[in-house]
Amino acid sequence: MATAQTIDFRRVTLPDPLPLDSGRELMGVQVAYETYGELAADRSNAVLIFHALTGDQFVAGRHPVTGKPGWWERMVGPGKPIDTSRFHVICANVIGSCMGSTGPASLGPDGQPYAMGFPVITIRDMVRAQMRLLDVLGIGTLHAVVGGSMGGMQALSCAANFPERTGRVLAIATTARHSAQNIAFHEVGRQAVMADPDWQGGDYYGGKSPDKGLAVARMAAHITYLSEQGLTEKFGRQLQERDAKSFGFDADFQIESYLRYQGLAFTDRFDANSYLYITRAMDYFDLADEAGDKLADAFAPARETRFCLVSFDTDWLYTTADMREVVHALNAVAAPVSFVELSAPFGHDSFLLDVPALDRVVAGFLG
Amino acid sequence: MATAQTIDFRRVTLPDPLPLDSGRELMGVQVAYETYGELAADRSNAVLIFHALTGDQFVAGRHPVTGKPGWWERMVGPGKPIDTSRFHVICANVIGSCMGSTGPASLGPDGQPYAMGFPVITIRDMVRAQMRLLDVLGIGTLHAVVGGSMGGMQALSCAANFPERTGRVLAIATTARHSAQNIAFHEVGRQAVMADPDWQGGDYYGGKSPDKGLAVARMAAHITYLSEQGLTEKFGRQLQERDAKSFGFDADFQIESYLRYQGLAFTDRFDANSYLYITRAMDYFDLADEAGDKLADAFAPARETRFCLVSFDTDWLYTTADMREVVHALNAVAAPVSFVELSAPFGHDSFLLDVPALDRVVAGFLG
Repeated sequence: MATAQTIDFRRVTLPDPLPLDSGRELMGVQVAYETYGELAADRSNAVLIFHALTGDQFVAGRHPVTGKPGWWERMVGPGKPIDTSRFHVICANVIGSCMGSTGPASLGPDGQPYAMGFPVITIRDMVRAQMRLLDVLGIGTLHAVVGGSMGGMQALSCAANFPERTGRVLAIATTARHSAQNIAFHEVGRQAVMADPDWQGGDYYGGKSPDKGLAVARMAAHITYLSEQGLTEKFGRQLQERDAKSFGFDADFQIESYLRYQGLAFTDRFDANSYLYITRAMDYFDLADEAGDKLADAFAPARETRFCLVSFDTDWLYTTADMREVVHALNAVAAPVSFVELSAPFGHDSFLLDVPALDRVVAGFLG
Repeated sequence: MATAQTIDFRRVTLPDPLPLDSGRELMGVQVAYETYGELAADRSNAVLIFHALTGDQFVAGRHPVTGKPGWWERMVGPGKPIDTSRFHVICANVIGSCMGSTGPASLGPDGQPYAMGFPVITIRDMVRAQMRLLDVLGIGTLHAVVGGSMGGMQALSCAANFPERTGRVLAIATTARHSAQNIAFHEVGRQAVMADPDWQGGDYYGGKSPDKGLAVARMAAHITYLSEQGLTEKFGRQLQERDAKSFGFDADFQIESYLRYQGLAFTDRFDANSYLYITRAMDYFDLADEAGDKLADAFAPARETRFCLVSFDTDWLYTTADMREVVHALNAVAAPVSFVELSAPFGHDSFLLDVPALDRVVAGFLG
């Protein structure tokens, strides 16, 4: 299998240092990206898609590392809801990640991997890097920004911080602020990674990586992506390739072997330190806090931007109530906003899965 | 600090081998227990309390290992809802646990700790051991059995399997069957323990115990014990002893340091292998399955038993809907049952915390 180390990613090196919310700055930042569809002569048809925690720039087509279809293959392509025969779609790997953009596995100024010497970044830092990418690509104003989950956080942050570049905002299954429960689940994952002796304080590059810890982190997170109802429908208490309980510690139940597989498969394509940094960025995310603790103030510069927000009724990670808070803040600054709660059985992961109603909302909003 | 190894527990050794649901049997089973209040001359006033996953026999008074008050101090004592001036309260450490009853840390027939050679046990096995304890103590019929969470599972199992000994059943915040989501959270915990190299396939006795893995397991489980609302009220996004985010990986948020503390403190008093065995027993629990897949059939022998079921509106681990299934099954066999959903902000842990309405229900039902 190809690995991220052996792939010649399409990417740019930002010409200037990237200032970060921490006060530090990153030099020589690389941003890996993919595009789909042609840019119009007047450059008016660009749509920027932001990916989620463990996503990357490979929205459609075949993923060069996993060999699987892109993560939003069903949504992006000619004639699809985000129609690449009309729109020039751009998706960039966020900084801090591990699919070609600068992150903890990248070499720092001393020629060694940054590891835990990488600066702690924020959602806004991720967005800032992508705006710099657009500068390099010669794209000013975006027809729209689109994202689910952490991608939705970036979409909201983009509107708040770069309103002049943000034509429309489509934010799905997301929140303007990570809650205590959200932080708690991420903290369990981070502690699982850090408890793995192979983590070595982050200095595992070139050696054995902390796959066991990262797999446990992924398993814990994965539960939060699924609804209780969806789990019951998909797995219930069904046994895994056996007729009776084994009275042992093998994966007796299908849900157990499913989770073990999800945990293991994840370690093939993701860097453990990236997982630490990106979960940290999400936990730090609090749009209201950036604007002096009032969410409406964060959106005040974006009152000309059109928003569409979508939640799912079975999403218990970022709930309809979370989204409604965003709607209220947008209402308070009289920004044009439409909001819909869709019914889908898959929990948080609904934004990635077969929900035809979502397709209609996306296609309709992009116009 | 005292440890479980240095304490002279009050316990009995069962005279006969204990048959297990797995088909195996355990010889020389020890059951550690505590009692509170006097047994009446006619032996009619015994109340058996079943403890939860990480609980033990020290319901009230001072815990000899932790030095803290017993886990249900607020509920059990003279003049309290379970009034020890009227009732003879018994609570036994479940087999598989680590507070004096036979479990994986106990010495097996070969003079070595059982470790993972301990047989996989079930909730019914736990109850069976406690009925044998009552035989030794000369107690036939119980005035009532009482339990929350896994204690509630034992209470329901006791009614189904030993109806002639079970006068009344008070089952709180529990379920008749572990769901896929319940199993998933436990599986994450088990994988965290087993991923710790100090676990050594379970053979860590006498050496370093897998504290890091067990702490992660406890952290993940702990999130499920609390409500989202409770977490928000208690912690929100408050920072831990600092004015601003550190842009590092220390515990910036109070919820992070709280979870880290909970995970760490747990390893002082609990055996990792016991955690594996007891979570397995809970995951195997499915009362309907024991009766040919119909829950009502499980309760058919208990139609003369009086039941009281209590759920909490913020408990997302064992929900009101789970409890309602039990009520329907009891209705189907015309067993006398009262059911109440209480409002409390603490999630699943409400059964352990200050919920005055629960006190009234408990006192009222015990009569």
